Amino acid sequence: MDLMTAIKERRSCRSFSDEPIEKEHLEKILDAATWAPSPLNAQPWSFIVISNSEVKKNIFTEAERSREQGVQKSGWGWLGKYRMDFLMSAPAIIAVAGNPKKSGVDQFMEEGARAYEHACAAAIQNMMLTAHALGIGSVWFTLFDREKLSEILDLASDKIPLALVCLGKAAADPTPTPRKGFANKTTYIA
Amino acid sequence: MDLMTAIKERRSCRSFSDEPIEKEHLEKILDAATWAPSPLNAQPWSFIVISNSEVKKNIFTEAERSREQGVQKSGWGWLGKYRMDFLMSAPAIIAVAGNPKKSGVDQFMEEGARAYEHACAAAIQNMMLTAHALGIGSVWFTLFDREKLSEILDLASDKIPLALVCLGKAAADPTPTPRKGFANKTTYIA
Repeated sequence: MDLMTAIKERRSCRSFSDEPIEKEHLEKILDAATWAPSPLNAQPWSFIVISNSEVKKNIFTEAERSREQGVQKSGWGWLGKYRMDFLMSAPAIIAVAGNPKKSGVDQFMEEGARAYEHACAAAIQNMMLTAHALGIGSVWFTLFDREKLSEILDLASDKIPLALVCLGKAAADPTPTPRKGFANKTTYIA
Repeated sequence: MDLMTAIKERRSCRSFSDEPIEKEHLEKILDAATWAPSPLNAQPWSFIVISNSEVKKNIFTEAERSREQGVQKSGWGWLGKYRMDFLMSAPAIIAVAGNPKKSGVDQFMEEGARAYEHACAAAIQNMMLTAHALGIGSVWFTLFDREKLSEILDLASDKIPLALVCLGKAAADPTPTPRKGFANKTTYIA
């Protein structure tokens, strides 16, 4: 698929059919992730491919707990009605974890390690574009407590789970979301 | 350009010719950025396109200061020799700033706002892929203090500069960097 088509037509998908993802497609998505840029080419990412129903249920339960806490702290009433059953219906979820020791020099600086998170985010964007090109829907999900998700996924202590990428064939056409054009977002220092 | 070609052939470019970037190309790169996913579609990014030599010099000076501090804190001797003159030779630098108030519910949670940074990183990946498809080299640069760069760019207090994307025609073929294959980075919970 043409790059610009993939960039402009990708949509967040929150409704999946139960058709499993072909191994070959899953591997193309994972391969694309590894080609993202990273600080010092440290490739700080790791991927956990989850298809186990029980683990998906545990993730869903943690997301519900986190959502409830979010409603209380934000005061966003609508959040309480945000449906998250795609966490159980998605045939595969790829958890993307990052290693803060594989960040740039920022890990020694005041702000602390951030570049490794950015690299993982770039890897996720590669994954979502590639999924779309393969006819697979995806959504980038972060409503969880990192420590609790680490426990659920039994991650080593140097791996911080940053996002869950839910993947599957779309059960319905995802709604397009509008964008503010770049002109509204850009200033020039010439 | 085909999506997978762009993903696999993009390289970090640190040597630019002085050929300016066509306005039309610059706008395609900025447009691509706006199609990244973001929490609640909040589109937390803003872009500052820098072509002014004096501002580029100020950025370079801040990068030098930050590099020196980095050498001292990390003990990485090689970092002191890391050349950063591409900050002055790149015909355009796009600073990408994010608004932490335009994050998801995470802005109310313990970890603090992170999702807006991830969205900006996804936007940057779109930019770098698009630049490559247009024959333009790019490098993602973060060796600066965020507050100091804010001052240099005279940013409003709700805009946090997250990265500088240096852009221009490559003066030499960038060196490919190897990747660990996904198999080394992936575990399965089936």
